Amino acid sequence: MSSVTTAQSSSGFGLDHLPYGIFSTADGPRRVGVRLEDRVLDLAAATGRAELARPSLNDFMALGHDAWQELRDSLPGLLGTGDHQHRLADVELHLPIEVGDYVDFYASEHHASNVGRIFRPDQEPLLPNWKHLPVGYHGRSGTVVASGTEIIRPQGQRKAPDATAPTFGPSQRLDIEAELGFVVGTPSRLGEPVSTADFVRHTFGVVGLNDWSARDIQAWEYVPLGPFLGKSFATSISHWVTPLAALDAAWTELPGQDDPEVLDYLRVDGPAGLDIDVEVVLDGEVVSRPPYRTMYWSPAQMLAHTTVNGATVRTGDLWGSGTISGPGRDERGSLLELSWGGKEPFTVAGRERTFLEDGDEVTLRYTAPSTGGGRLSLGEVVGRIAPARTARL
Amino acid sequence: MSSVTTAQSSSGFGLDHLPYGIFSTADGPRRVGVRLEDRVLDLAAATGRAELARPSLNDFMALGHDAWQELRDSLPGLLGTGDHQHRLADVELHLPIEVGDYVDFYASEHHASNVGRIFRPDQEPLLPNWKHLPVGYHGRSGTVVASGTEIIRPQGQRKAPDATAPTFGPSQRLDIEAELGFVVGTPSRLGEPVSTADFVRHTFGVVGLNDWSARDIQAWEYVPLGPFLGKSFATSISHWVTPLAALDAAWTELPGQDDPEVLDYLRVDGPAGLDIDVEVVLDGEVVSRPPYRTMYWSPAQMLAHTTVNGATVRTGDLWGSGTISGPGRDERGSLLELSWGGKEPFTVAGRERTFLEDGDEVTLRYTAPSTGGGRLSLGEVVGRIAPARTARL
Repeated sequence: MSSVTTAQSSSGFGLDHLPYGIFSTADGPRRVGVRLEDRVLDLAAATGRAELARPSLNDFMALGHDAWQELRDSLPGLLGTGDHQHRLADVELHLPIEVGDYVDFYASEHHASNVGRIFRPDQEPLLPNWKHLPVGYHGRSGTVVASGTEIIRPQGQRKAPDATAPTFGPSQRLDIEAELGFVVGTPSRLGEPVSTADFVRHTFGVVGLNDWSARDIQAWEYVPLGPFLGKSFATSISHWVTPLAALDAAWTELPGQDDPEVLDYLRVDGPAGLDIDVEVVLDGEVVSRPPYRTMYWSPAQMLAHTTVNGATVRTGDLWGSGTISGPGRDERGSLLELSWGGKEPFTVAGRERTFLEDGDEVTLRYTAPSTGGGRLSLGEVVGRIAPARTARL
Repeated sequence: MSSVTTAQSSSGFGLDHLPYGIFSTADGPRRVGVRLEDRVLDLAAATGRAELARPSLNDFMALGHDAWQELRDSLPGLLGTGDHQHRLADVELHLPIEVGDYVDFYASEHHASNVGRIFRPDQEPLLPNWKHLPVGYHGRSGTVVASGTEIIRPQGQRKAPDATAPTFGPSQRLDIEAELGFVVGTPSRLGEPVSTADFVRHTFGVVGLNDWSARDIQAWEYVPLGPFLGKSFATSISHWVTPLAALDAAWTELPGQDDPEVLDYLRVDGPAGLDIDVEVVLDGEVVSRPPYRTMYWSPAQMLAHTTVNGATVRTGDLWGSGTISGPGRDERGSLLELSWGGKEPFTVAGRERTFLEDGDEVTLRYTAPSTGGGRLSLGEVVGRIAPARTARL
């Protein structure tokens, strides 16, 4: 009768993981489920709790850290009965959270340096503020979509360097950004900053995140107020949210923040980075393996920075790490870097590639060490590029 | 028995206006009200409709343009009975909308030119993209607050031009931005741009908006991804949302977009600007009168631009015009411009002033021509500066 497996799971979805998501069946509404191996436990049915019968995780996340832990502690028992379970193949998965504010950071030194070298080859690759604060900006929360959602090639203005005026049309430099996303559970109050030590109390969990980017649109628009339409058409996140409690074995030291030292509100004690491996898969071939442990800024620092001016965080707020790139050529988390601004094509399945083509499918996969000794598979992020809808304009 | 007044009202809140808001009384929950003179009609009670018994206007706004017009047509009749009305002084007013995405533009040529002259005195005041597209960026929707909310002076990093490293502390250059805000009612679909002609179908109404800005924090953080903590601590909007239908007499021609001509998706037919007058009141004295009719980019163009890449708009999305500044010295919508970067103090109540001081109260007032021949008073925006909460860090 028991359907509980051992903690160590070759699938990455064993009892040591138990990520949450929103699912529906043909005969029922969207509700909260938890994944074990290739099954989904209907938590609304299994617990009878109203906050788990909702179309997003938000009401549950808003209950706070103790409630998260209490439910997690009860899951082996609930799963052990074998009741209220569906085969993963029989359910439809949805966007897991109702997104409040979406903030995207720029926390990889290797990524920021690469971008600097590509666009400003004669200058210092990092801008003066970069090592003093985690640079970030607000993205569009209304276009955060679930893994699997078709990505329609955006149209917009772009101007060639030697052109006198911009032209309008489909983006010719459509790109990915392989990122990790963090989801706020417990809200904060206006005027009360969240310290780096309070990160665990406010953060519910982690998602995979692909911050689709139209580099040509972005290049023309972004001075002086930052990226807007070059990013706002779509941001994909995984169906599954890995609770922070499942990542206890993944914490690792940051690469180092000695020169310069950070200001007090950005200080962290102990391991503040995460040893999460990422794979970027383009049309079935792994083209890059960005290592999250190489990120300069930690998630706790991003949260502390976001709120140090007194701004609140709300349940459902999402922040992205920014593109994850390691030091190696095969550790770059964007096609901009992999093709060095489009000038050095790379080979996928025997073809030379730079930016995304219509019909391309991109999958981001994430794994993390487990307390059980194996590895967790975090929720993957899939997106296929559909042609621009030129006829509509 | 009738409490209906004539259409022309010296208060600006006559039958020709009828703005919507969210109110509560000591014995009841937040619900939708409409204002006539110094009274508020309880629309939940007067109509019995569920979407008007909500704590935000969103459910009503989501019904779409025909439903907005139908309710507006019924208001004189509902108000004529005298039932379900409260004195304005007896109710509490709240944030009128649940904000989806908040986008802030930069649509005043005079403002953008002034900022260019202040920060880049040796260069062209306008950047190359400025007349080709309405420059905008996403702000923080979670910190959009109702008029009257105390504004706590933000803390953060700022670096003096001659300093080698940033320091942390309360902003020393706290500023206002006098803007007009637009609220989306009818959502759009992913991949389907909203044309300039569809502006009226998607836009529910107009609010007053003060985009509080910490210039020193902003200056240090904003390259290359735009403003973040310099803006995200608070954005105040008016309690009252003026429906677009009340502004029929306010439409006016844009100042001109001939050089360069705009791309097709940004073209507008007929009067696309709004003849709205703004007053900036600092500690009881009018310090500026920015004219909205001088704005280069129209609200319909901002909406079309926001969606041209396929991004959706949602019910409750808010966009700000950017600081409204006219050509005159006394028509500037920010203290940055009024004090020319802090270098040319101006006098208020006999004292020399540059940026905001603790205890300052700022009120933004807006009026627009009415179809009745008088003027409407749009919802005002009030905020008082409270000292930074330095003890908390």
